[in-house]
Amino acid sequence: MSQPSAYQSLVASFTRLYRYEHLSAMVSWDQATMMPPKGNDARAAAQAELDVLMHATLTDPALAEQLQRAEQEDLSLQERASLREMRREWQRANLLPATLVEAQALAGARCEHAWRSQRTANDWAGFLQNFREVVALSRQEARLLAEAQGCSPYDALMNKYEPGMQSADIDRIFGEVKQWLPGLIAQVMAKQAKEPLHLPQGSFPVEQQRQLGLAVMQLLGFDFDGGRLDVSVHPFCGGVAEDVRITTRYREDDFMQSLMGIIHETGHARYEQGLPRDMLHLPVGRARSMGIHESQSLSFEMQLGRSPAFLSLIAPLVGQYLGEQPALSAANLTGLYSRVHPGFIRVDADELCYPAHVILRYEIEKALMEGEIEAEDIPALWDEKMQAYLGVDTRGNYRQGCLQDIHWTDGSFGYFPSYTLGAMYAAQYFTVMRRDTPDLDQRIAAGDLAVVFDWLQQHIWSQASLHGTNELVQHATGESLNPAYFHAHLQARYLA
Amino acid sequence: MSQPSAYQSLVASFTRLYRYEHLSAMVSWDQATMMPPKGNDARAAAQAELDVLMHATLTDPALAEQLQRAEQEDLSLQERASLREMRREWQRANLLPATLVEAQALAGARCEHAWRSQRTANDWAGFLQNFREVVALSRQEARLLAEAQGCSPYDALMNKYEPGMQSADIDRIFGEVKQWLPGLIAQVMAKQAKEPLHLPQGSFPVEQQRQLGLAVMQLLGFDFDGGRLDVSVHPFCGGVAEDVRITTRYREDDFMQSLMGIIHETGHARYEQGLPRDMLHLPVGRARSMGIHESQSLSFEMQLGRSPAFLSLIAPLVGQYLGEQPALSAANLTGLYSRVHPGFIRVDADELCYPAHVILRYEIEKALMEGEIEAEDIPALWDEKMQAYLGVDTRGNYRQGCLQDIHWTDGSFGYFPSYTLGAMYAAQYFTVMRRDTPDLDQRIAAGDLAVVFDWLQQHIWSQASLHGTNELVQHATGESLNPAYFHAHLQARYLA
Repeated sequence: MSQPSAYQSLVASFTRLYRYEHLSAMVSWDQATMMPPKGNDARAAAQAELDVLMHATLTDPALAEQLQRAEQEDLSLQERASLREMRREWQRANLLPATLVEAQALAGARCEHAWRSQRTANDWAGFLQNFREVVALSRQEARLLAEAQGCSPYDALMNKYEPGMQSADIDRIFGEVKQWLPGLIAQVMAKQAKEPLHLPQGSFPVEQQRQLGLAVMQLLGFDFDGGRLDVSVHPFCGGVAEDVRITTRYREDDFMQSLMGIIHETGHARYEQGLPRDMLHLPVGRARSMGIHESQSLSFEMQLGRSPAFLSLIAPLVGQYLGEQPALSAANLTGLYSRVHPGFIRVDADELCYPAHVILRYEIEKALMEGEIEAEDIPALWDEKMQAYLGVDTRGNYRQGCLQDIHWTDGSFGYFPSYTLGAMYAAQYFTVMRRDTPDLDQRIAAGDLAVVFDWLQQHIWSQASLHGTNELVQHATGESLNPAYFHAHLQARYLA
Repeated sequence: MSQPSAYQSLVASFTRLYRYEHLSAMVSWDQATMMPPKGNDARAAAQAELDVLMHATLTDPALAEQLQRAEQEDLSLQERASLREMRREWQRANLLPATLVEAQALAGARCEHAWRSQRTANDWAGFLQNFREVVALSRQEARLLAEAQGCSPYDALMNKYEPGMQSADIDRIFGEVKQWLPGLIAQVMAKQAKEPLHLPQGSFPVEQQRQLGLAVMQLLGFDFDGGRLDVSVHPFCGGVAEDVRITTRYREDDFMQSLMGIIHETGHARYEQGLPRDMLHLPVGRARSMGIHESQSLSFEMQLGRSPAFLSLIAPLVGQYLGEQPALSAANLTGLYSRVHPGFIRVDADELCYPAHVILRYEIEKALMEGEIEAEDIPALWDEKMQAYLGVDTRGNYRQGCLQDIHWTDGSFGYFPSYTLGAMYAAQYFTVMRRDTPDLDQRIAAGDLAVVFDWLQQHIWSQASLHGTNELVQHATGESLNPAYFHAHLQARYLA
């Protein structure tokens, strides 16, 4: 038997890691959906032990040498891509000293834990005491990553979520959006003020909502032999590609959030279920980036889910499970799901206002990481930007202002752009789909969704991480990310 | 900082192992209750990787040396017991060569997998082809363990489940039972033939059965902040002591099996929930043995659950959740739950016939492991013993005969005695409880179950594995296992 190649040795190590990640994903899902409170301490200890093990696997000194050697080996194109993704994952784990990683975990956990009550208490001053340390450590991380990767500190952080994306591009893209977004919001609000809607009346029993959700997942092609729907406080798409676990939460007085949430998570789920089965054990076989992942959930939620065609398709189902009433007609549901109303909270924002929330956070976190502002400058900047972009006054209201999100509390700087990039990619995909299939909306309304799924399967799901993000989008749509499609989509949907 | 003692180093290793076992227990539970079919391959690979890791942790050469050194250290009584249990777990993993363990896993998996269809097809000849290898490997295992432990081959296997138990004792105990059991069964059947019963009429909706099960678990003191009830094909008690997951299965045409199954699993669960919290990370903090575990489930099911007092306590609940009918009166339920009827299948057997199924298997597996018989001799012996103990003819009926159980298919020889030992321990506990609390049954009927729980908590649950089994039972009841109590219990219940 001949010696395994360096590449084969790497495959063995990353396969082991993939199996550890399976365990981690499943117990995390269980923690959020099933675990009773007294299980928490033992679970946290077990999960931490697994984290140590995964980190040890990725920082095994043998890997560095194997990555070097594998570069010289005779590899196929796919193996080259695989090696590139292995190196990326390896680098993320090896660039940072263990002392920094540990300090970040501790400071992040402390800050996040305290934030849960500080947010409720509107206690910015208290938050700041922990948050300064989180910022300082994230800046250290950013500096180290930036030096190794030859980019700016903020870009280095953003690259954890959006490999290859540069803030120069984001600046340009978001800069354009800022030109037209406030005006568009005002225009749409004026228009919608003259279009009265029925509000849904009811209590909507949870079990009926669940059955409706399952029926819509079925329609959307969710593979129930490879996944489940359950309940958690914060909805998410978890589990593993072979066994995708999505969650929702139900309120008896409002079915709309849960229903659209299920459609959103089903988009994430189908990406995972559509990844090529033979590469799942390797980094190259995983989802491309957070932005691309969000582009799938938003293809389902924004492009498909909130479209008049799709809502006319599911309106009979909604009536069947929740009982008929005027508010549940296709037209009224379409109106409800496209109502625009600027507010404080990002996660409650409508499609049109959402980018403003993201741009604001991007601008602040970038300045913070680049050292242009300090943590104490955030509230004033927040107020100023909320006023400028959405006309909302948040002075002194930290709870519904800069304390509302969890992301910064544990140092996840660089994540926010993914949300709006996802929305833009999704608009670009559907523009291409509509160009290639002019009767797309008639098909959707008739329940023929295959054209959408086939397009996403062929251009996104099956491609996993074989290509960089830009290359993936170019192959799929014929050009790089072009925010003009997003603008056109919003105009068509909200001003038509 | 001083060097950690050898004992402290062992504690660190076994704590790590405990955390891995947590992950293993939770994903196993998930596999049986939640996992969709397409998750199976990735799950099996992840679980196997974890098994490798746990085995590597236990076979780390440093442990051998630490166990030696720790013997010389100045340890408390509890630490000595802890060290003893660590050594037992270490020995089990280190006595056998890895090649044998692997061969057993492969042969066992092959035999068990094929058995699933061979059982249905009544295909003994086909089964035998795989089973001979399983037997040969288990005999090798038994010989190696026996040499190291200075006992007989069968005793060495049984010691995996019942540390310290010897087949000489089992021979004596089961020998006594065989003297009186067939006669008692005949006597009881003659008596019951003259006592007609109402059969429950219904379809019993699953959700109602579930609510009833939860109400009975509540009554039995199950801590829902530290555990759950779910559904699986084969009911079990899984999870971890901090988060106990019990399962049941429902049939709409029969609530009785599910209800009593829940009571049985709740007995296992309360043992786990009653183990001392500060020792759970060490082997000494776990349940004493399979027989003692079964003594808890059977204390709940047989001693408590099927008693007239307990059934009179829960009859109103049964009526409340399932609707009143004559069959659900306390007296009729008591009659139904004590009906004796010899049959083919062990898991369907009543309290009186169950020991006959166990004794038969014990005698056959012992002879097989001691080399007194060969695999091909099993069917004839099975027929002969079924005829002698239960008057049931199984000739040519392998499906409902020697192919019915999973235990032998993967080489779990030595497990069967635990079931009947558990029943005997339970009878002994309740004899002592009744002696100390003469109005025990009146209290149970009145819903005052604390006296039972307190006794078990004090004498069994809180003791974990601090003592050997015999010592535990002596401390609890004043004497070693005495099957006379079991005999007296059966006479009192079935001939009174």
